[in-house]
Amino acid sequence: MITLNFANLMEEVIGKNGLTEREIEDFKPEAQKAFQQLIQRKWKELDFLDLPEQDTLKIKEIARQTVDDSEYFLLLGIGGSALGPRAILEALSPLHNLRRTPRVFIYDNVDPRTIDAILEIIDLKKTTVNVITKSGSTAETVASFMILWEQMQKLYGEEAFKRFIATTDPEKGNLREIVRRYGMSSLEIPPGVGGRYSVLSPVGLLLAEVIGVDSKELLLGARDMRQRCMEEDLWKNPALLLASALYKFGQAGRTIDVIIPYADGLKSFSEWFCQLWSESLGKLGLGLTPYPSVGTTDQHSQLQLWMEGPEDKVVLFIRVEDYGVDRKIPIVFEDMDGLNYLSGHSLSELIKAEEESSELALAKAGRPNARITVPSVDAYHLGQLFMFFEIVTAFTGFMLGINPFNQPGVEEGKHFTYGMMGKKGFEERRKEVEASRERKICWTL
Amino acid sequence: MITLNFANLMEEVIGKNGLTEREIEDFKPEAQKAFQQLIQRKWKELDFLDLPEQDTLKIKEIARQTVDDSEYFLLLGIGGSALGPRAILEALSPLHNLRRTPRVFIYDNVDPRTIDAILEIIDLKKTTVNVITKSGSTAETVASFMILWEQMQKLYGEEAFKRFIATTDPEKGNLREIVRRYGMSSLEIPPGVGGRYSVLSPVGLLLAEVIGVDSKELLLGARDMRQRCMEEDLWKNPALLLASALYKFGQAGRTIDVIIPYADGLKSFSEWFCQLWSESLGKLGLGLTPYPSVGTTDQHSQLQLWMEGPEDKVVLFIRVEDYGVDRKIPIVFEDMDGLNYLSGHSLSELIKAEEESSELALAKAGRPNARITVPSVDAYHLGQLFMFFEIVTAFTGFMLGINPFNQPGVEEGKHFTYGMMGKKGFEERRKEVEASRERKICWTL
Repeated sequence: MITLNFANLMEEVIGKNGLTEREIEDFKPEAQKAFQQLIQRKWKELDFLDLPEQDTLKIKEIARQTVDDSEYFLLLGIGGSALGPRAILEALSPLHNLRRTPRVFIYDNVDPRTIDAILEIIDLKKTTVNVITKSGSTAETVASFMILWEQMQKLYGEEAFKRFIATTDPEKGNLREIVRRYGMSSLEIPPGVGGRYSVLSPVGLLLAEVIGVDSKELLLGARDMRQRCMEEDLWKNPALLLASALYKFGQAGRTIDVIIPYADGLKSFSEWFCQLWSESLGKLGLGLTPYPSVGTTDQHSQLQLWMEGPEDKVVLFIRVEDYGVDRKIPIVFEDMDGLNYLSGHSLSELIKAEEESSELALAKAGRPNARITVPSVDAYHLGQLFMFFEIVTAFTGFMLGINPFNQPGVEEGKHFTYGMMGKKGFEERRKEVEASRERKICWTL
Repeated sequence: MITLNFANLMEEVIGKNGLTEREIEDFKPEAQKAFQQLIQRKWKELDFLDLPEQDTLKIKEIARQTVDDSEYFLLLGIGGSALGPRAILEALSPLHNLRRTPRVFIYDNVDPRTIDAILEIIDLKKTTVNVITKSGSTAETVASFMILWEQMQKLYGEEAFKRFIATTDPEKGNLREIVRRYGMSSLEIPPGVGGRYSVLSPVGLLLAEVIGVDSKELLLGARDMRQRCMEEDLWKNPALLLASALYKFGQAGRTIDVIIPYADGLKSFSEWFCQLWSESLGKLGLGLTPYPSVGTTDQHSQLQLWMEGPEDKVVLFIRVEDYGVDRKIPIVFEDMDGLNYLSGHSLSELIKAEEESSELALAKAGRPNARITVPSVDAYHLGQLFMFFEIVTAFTGFMLGINPFNQPGVEEGKHFTYGMMGKKGFEERRKEVEASRERKICWTL
């Protein structure tokens, strides 16, 4: 199992910036309230907790067909519909497109340069397109879907729909309507599962199966972690303890939560976490800012700021115990003291030593940090990580007293875009944009 | 030229959170002091300002040889030695490895899974290795260099050195010594150019030439931008104005600076900026935390937090005027109101509308933001962006009263690693690490 070590969050270890056992004890009633909201399913969006029990038969079947008849798998989605799948892809199949088929492309933007490059590379006759949008009308996703639809129509005419798999709401929305109309292959995102909590739904699982990962393993890990996080006593519940600590540090002005896995393949996992944390918690003037990092790389980018910058951060290390593969650093340049001390060690020794060193350096400087240890980067433990951070996020949201499942703040921007794109009913918004342009002219350098 | 629009930083536009013209006027003496430090070259590390005038003949010659005899180009480096090259690669040759040769790999970690994957893909007999470390002894870089050295020795024996290009200090360090010993091909990082300010030195330029980018264009853009930033009056100097504004917002509690280019290819540029900003400014308890984003993608990840989270951010939009390529969104699904409003528009219209919408939504919510407009994502304008942000960073550092060119906070961690790796003279540090492990046991869940 994944473990949480929180020594470097404690006053006993890092001094006055740390938490005391007493403080955590005193926080128990509040932690309990948050815990009860989860246990009693006070929000319908807590259905993500049930995903480990889903039936994966249809996902496996569709994946099998895809692998059989496709050399390219193009995923169209944005936000939670892309970040989860990408986290799975990069963690479980590093440098996938240079080593494995089907080649996988995740187009989670409307950047014309990117789709141009993708369409140069792929052969549409050998491509399956997975379009993912829960609402069925996410602007970026449907724009790219419409482009691909036309391209496939040119190739296949009325059979075009056969090259698509829709992952969307079981009942509602335009994409579901299109599925009905054409008999398009489809998978369902449960109504009680929000986009950023959807990685363990068909959103992430189809891609997992397509790249040869057994989705059951992801779900098994998630199930076991959920079990661990159902413990009432916060001293025995890693998610409740971490949520309590991050909440309390936030109240004390440490409002930036850095996540730094020591594995290139978990960089996208960091980004997945950052969406989860930002969108879930950032509302009503509250919230904590996540920061996506990767070790050792960002020791040469961010560590200086964490060590000596403002006292506004908590750093979450993710340590990998077994990388599965390894390389010895050979005995070469024996007379050079700047190099020879490395000889005989392995890369995994070095990366783990650096992880531990950064923790300790921060702790000595009185900067709170914690260590999450992952036995290995595989489907089972990745499933654990997903479920762990989803539960931590829900707990923290409940502690903040906000709804961790909505995102009201993004509507305004969407409406301006609708206005500019000429969507009916948003004419006033268009005028507002035009008026704003006038104001801007004199402030340009 | 790149332009800066700062309307949405001003009280006149966004209300009380904004800056007034008066405040900026009053700040002029401080801005002038920062400006003078740059102009008078008060720090030797300001030599990055001279990079546009460097001779690129040798770089071009080495690049030509590399392209002639290599199908793979493996760059070993970390921090500034990797972030700049990667920013160039991803901006100027999207999805490079699936479309162009030589294939380029940037190994900026000691993750064994990554090097394992790279070595599975590349053919060492057709690979040139560019090892980049200014000091010549960066642990991660030399560890991977030693591994590659042994591999090449197995293939080429005494001729192994011919497969390497060293980019390092002209005089000092282990790597320069190795160059001398073997007659290895090499390029020089000027002594007065720090790692994170080195992208326009051979560090970034060799890779640029290898992927077919004319390094002269990068330098030309940088030169023209430098020229613009030599203007004494902050109302006419975009770098001095932006530095002043970010400094003043930082003083007022907006200590997180988000950078969000609306181009997938500039995501790595964001990460390059984040190192520059973090390591340069994060010291003496001061500093500003950068945040790397990409639009439109992160509208579905971070925007909620920027709109409704704590009042601790300034958002810097990077808008692209001309993407070079484009796609029309076709007329399909005509009866569906959730989709049909997009028909007839192009992807570049949509991405630009979303960028403008996000700016305006933030401004209406009283959240300060600014727009940097890039005419197109090409070498000339990328050169401008690099120089612009380097100068902004130096100015901001001078305003904070810190040395923006050192990174004293990362030494402690390195020493612990040396201890664990058995480097002579660091035995005490090893003991300290071991002692810290004892403490940790009781805090594990």
